[in-house]
This record gives sequence, C-alpha cells and structure tokens, in this order.
Amino acid sequence: MNDFISLNHGSGGKLTHELIEKVFVKRFAMSEPLTDSFIIKESGSTLAFTTDSYVVDPLFFPGGNIGKLAICGTINDLAVSGADPRYIAVSFIIEEGFPMDDLVLIADSMAEEAAKAGVKIVTGDTKVVDKGKCDKLFITTSGIGFLNSEIENISTGKRIKPGDKLIINGPLGNHAIAILGARNNMAFKTTVTSDCASLNHLIHKVLQNCKEILFMRDVTRGGLATVLNELSSMIMSGIIVNEALIPIDDQVKGLCEMLGFDPLYLANEGKVLMVVGTGEENKVIEILRSDPLGRCSEVIGEIIPDKKGLVVLNTSVGGKRILDMPAGMQLPRIC
Amino acid sequence: MNDFISLNHGSGGKLTHELIEKVFVKRFAMSEPLTDSFIIKESGSTLAFTTDSYVVDPLFFPGGNIGKLAICGTINDLAVSGADPRYIAVSFIIEEGFPMDDLVLIADSMAEEAAKAGVKIVTGDTKVVDKGKCDKLFITTSGIGFLNSEIENISTGKRIKPGDKLIINGPLGNHAIAILGARNNMAFKTTVTSDCASLNHLIHKVLQNCKEILFMRDVTRGGLATVLNELSSMIMSGIIVNEALIPIDDQVKGLCEMLGFDPLYLANEGKVLMVVGTGEENKVIEILRSDPLGRCSEVIGEIIPDKKGLVVLNTSVGGKRILDMPAGMQLPRIC
Repeated sequence: MNDFISLNHGSGGKLTHELIEKVFVKRFAMSEPLTDSFIIKESGSTLAFTTDSYVVDPLFFPGGNIGKLAICGTINDLAVSGADPRYIAVSFIIEEGFPMDDLVLIADSMAEEAAKAGVKIVTGDTKVVDKGKCDKLFITTSGIGFLNSEIENISTGKRIKPGDKLIINGPLGNHAIAILGARNNMAFKTTVTSDCASLNHLIHKVLQNCKEILFMRDVTRGGLATVLNELSSMIMSGIIVNEALIPIDDQVKGLCEMLGFDPLYLANEGKVLMVVGTGEENKVIEILRSDPLGRCSEVIGEIIPDKKGLVVLNTSVGGKRILDMPAGMQLPRIC
Repeated sequence: MNDFISLNHGSGGKLTHELIEKVFVKRFAMSEPLTDSFIIKESGSTLAFTTDSYVVDPLFFPGGNIGKLAICGTINDLAVSGADPRYIAVSFIIEEGFPMDDLVLIADSMAEEAAKAGVKIVTGDTKVVDKGKCDKLFITTSGIGFLNSEIENISTGKRIKPGDKLIINGPLGNHAIAILGARNNMAFKTTVTSDCASLNHLIHKVLQNCKEILFMRDVTRGGLATVLNELSSMIMSGIIVNEALIPIDDQVKGLCEMLGFDPLYLANEGKVLMVVGTGEENKVIEILRSDPLGRCSEVIGEIIPDKKGLVVLNTSVGGKRILDMPAGMQLPRIC
C-alpha cells in the first residue's frame, strides 16, 4: 500500500477500493459486498443508511451547485438500494470568509431539490475553519430511506443470471464535462449541463411496475466502467456492453475526443444502471422513456455466462476490448 | 446578518444560532427545537438520527484523535436523546499527501471506540482533495440509534419544572485545554488529557434505574454556558448554578486563569448535563459516581421559577452574574 494518500485514492477506482478494503473494511468489520447504502433490519422496519462528502470544484456549475449535488447524490444512493428516501442530515465545513449570499443560494437549492424529491432535511452541523484551511465549502449528506421489507437488497444483485439485460437511463458524461467547462482555467467553453437529478420518483415507478429489477447502481465517480467492473466481480459473471448503444451526447463525445477522456469513465449524478430480467427490458424502457429523466434510456448490453469477472466492450468499429477498472483519476473533485 | 462567514459562525454561540436560524431552519422547514438528534417515528420504530463534522486541529492530542472524537461525538449525540446508538456512517475528506500510517492509526481508534461502545461502523465515503485544499483530514460521522417508543424525546425538556436539579458527570474544560496544549504554537505544556469518551453505557445505566431524567445534553462546543442558555430559552425558565460546585480540575483552572479563558465556555466530549426531578438527584449521583466516567459527578444547580430565559451564576466569591451565551469564539477548531 502507498505511504501517502494520493488524488487517485479518491478516484473511485482501483486505489479507492484498495484503501477501503485494507484500511476500513477489515478494521470496521464491515459486511461485504459494500453497496451504496447499508441495510438495517430492526424492530420490524427495514431501512437504508448512506453518507457521502461533496468537494466539487467549482461550487456552482451549469445545471446545479454543490448543495443540489449533495441532496441528489444521497437520494440516489438510497433509491438504488430499493429504498424510499425520506430523511437527510447535512453537515457543512465552511472556509472563513465564504460569502453568505453563496451559502444562501446553496441552501435554497438544497431545500428546493429535497422538496421536489419529497425528502426532509431534518438535522445538521456547521463547522468553520480558518481561511486557507479548506477550499470554500464541503458538504456531507447522510440519508435514511425505508424499504418494503419484502424487497431484497437489490444492490447485491443476487438474483442476476446470464441473459439479463443492462439498461441505462440516458447519456453519460454530462456532469463531468459541465464541471470541467465551469473551471475557469479550462481552455474551452461548452453548453453541456450537469445531469444532476434525484432519481427516486423514476426508480419508484419502475419498481412498482416491474418484478424483474435485479440490480441498480447510480453511475457516479469512476463512471459506467467502474460500476460494470464492480458488478462483474461482485456476481462473478461476465458482462458485455455494446459501445454503439451507449447514449452519449454529441457535444460530450466531441469534447472527450478533444481532451482525451473516455466518457465511460466520467462521473454523472442523474444516471442509474439497471439489470433487468430478460423479457422485461422493453417494459422497463417504456416506463423510463415516459419520464423526462429517462427519455434517452437504452438497453446497452447483457450478462454473459463466460468471461467471469470481466467487462467486454463491443466497440463501435467492430472490435472487442476489456473495459477495465480505472487505475487512476481522470478528473479530481468532480463530486 | 454578516456578509461573510467568520470563525465565530462556527463557535456554537450566538452567531452559529443566527446562521442556523436564518439560513437553514427556515429553508429546510426543520422542526424546532433543534436538538442533538432528530427523532423519527415510522412503521413501528422510533429512531434518532444525527450528524457532525470534525475539523479538530491537531488531529492527535492527549487522550484521543479526530477519529475517536468523531465516534464519541456521534454516540453521545444519540445517547443524550435517549436512544441506544447502533449504526455509524463515516465520511473522510483527506488532503493529498496525508500519511497512510496516520490514517491507519485514526481508523484503528475509531474501530476500537465503536467496539467499546457496542456500535457498528457500517458505511462510508472517502474523498481526496488536492494538497493545500483542506487541512490534512476532516471526518463527518452520522449515526442512527433506536429508542424505546415509550420514552419521550428528552432533549426537548418538556417535563422540566422549577426545583429540578442540574447534574454534571465530571470536570469541565479538559478537552479544550488538551487540544490547546497539543498545538505546537502554544507557549505552555500540560499533562491535561481530553475527556473524549462515549457516554452511552453510563447514560443507559441512569435511564434504566431512574424515572425522572427530564433532559440531557452533551456539553461540547460552547461549553456548559451555551448548553445552559439553550436550555433556559428552550423551556423559558430561569436556571441558577453554583460556581463552587462545578467540578474543574486544578490544572485546567490554573491554565484558564493564565490564558484568560472561562472554563464554563470550553468544549468537552465526555460530559453530559442532566436535569433530574427533585428527590431523585442523590440516586442519579450514586449511579454516576459508581462509573469511571461519572466519578466526579456533582449537583451544580437547579431550575428556578423566575428569571425566565436567564442563567444566573452564584460566583465562588459570593456574588451573582448572568452567564450569557458566548458571542464569539474562544478557541477555533476544538472539535
């Protein structure tokens, strides 16, 4: 293990996993597989519990700000575990000298996003550190959701079998490119907007109408490639995805080519990967596409019986390549 | 309201309250009074939910480190609401270049403290920011505890009446003085150790054996003076405390005199203020003193019918003074 923490330890990729495994999981006796939320069954209730810190730079970007992002992120972590997100706790670490007006704007959009999603912000904390000791503002949100006790924790993907279909609810990479475009030091301008959104209502509609939703994960830090790799090693199956079917907006595609990024590794905050029992994919696509947040949904691949633990990409030009877990970080502080 | 965030907004005193009231409570439609934990009653369960960020400087100090402090703090916030603390989520914001060995030491003491308290660390997050963008390490812990549904939320102090007694479980100010002594830029050395401890087992013993525990609050940022002021305005009663009865270690007293601090405003992380129905105070004191964490417990004052909303201190020299809410901050980044 490295002697010092590097930015790559925060990438969501290999080093993040190594850090979590070697430093935290063993010591804290955490139960694996680690998923977006921990499921608590206690005195008749089943609840999901999650936390995330947000250190996005810049704080304001096209399509949102750090506050909206924090609320959406926590809601989505709960929703993909099959829970109905209900309560959020929020903790602010603020740099001395931070403009009150900006804090008000951020609190406004947190309140707005929570109200839209039907979630309550119920408790919190505020710490202030001396000028230069943090970068403007960090937000940590934690959330509690309730599950129908009959629903298995779908984040573990236990019922997945070969032939099951992979569905994504829209184009990838917009959040990361929007953040990048908002950084003043970047030499390009873009009209790409972050996809930052709360997916709980969309996911609820799908879960209510479909019996064969076998896995969900929100596609955030580390992008689709990371989620697919985590899934394939968790269920010890192979996964095949077709590059030509993965929705990516033209402007994002163009900027990725120009800047040397692979959109399959870029962060999102309004995208969910679903694994759906074969035969039900058309129904799921129909429900998703009837909602603005799922309008561009696509079936992008399936679970295969061989290549256990590997993710294979059928490329647009007709080849095949292994889509590996990212070793390092493409972009720091995107969420 | 000020145009910019100042260190005083993080003091736990007047400006913190103003910030929370004017920026957060209204927007988030939070229900008041705000207490250490929010109580959720849902599908047959009653649970407490809390969050806190820790930005203590330095990270390691006599008696603990930021990790132990974070676990104790969250456990205590749950315990004083009458809940049995059970699950903790932890989120790390780490500066690039932070020594892995230090992170391991911190994780070790978090695991140790959680195990001792009978609490599980179940989920978490890790973010890394560029060198210079945060001060080494910040930790945010959130917690869930379960309540016996027959217990009222004692943090609201609804049953308090004149004559009820105030009890503290030991000497004040040790945590703040230990932190101060550990700062290399301070011109004094001390053997004072932080009181940082999880109080859930101690509180459980008291709650199991006494019916008249009418209020509890852990005495942290802002010190005893802040807790007493919050209590007196919450219940709109007067409070009288006797300075001579408040336990303060000689070394802490001496250093406070030398440095110009008032120990009643200094932070602790192993101290709880209890309001106890008159007649039961001796029994509570007996239970507390039988535990190492309550060995120096004292009855320090009582609720009075007049002076509504005010805290009156009978000073050691025979006078009286109003113990006000701190306007500013005595010491930044003590928790």
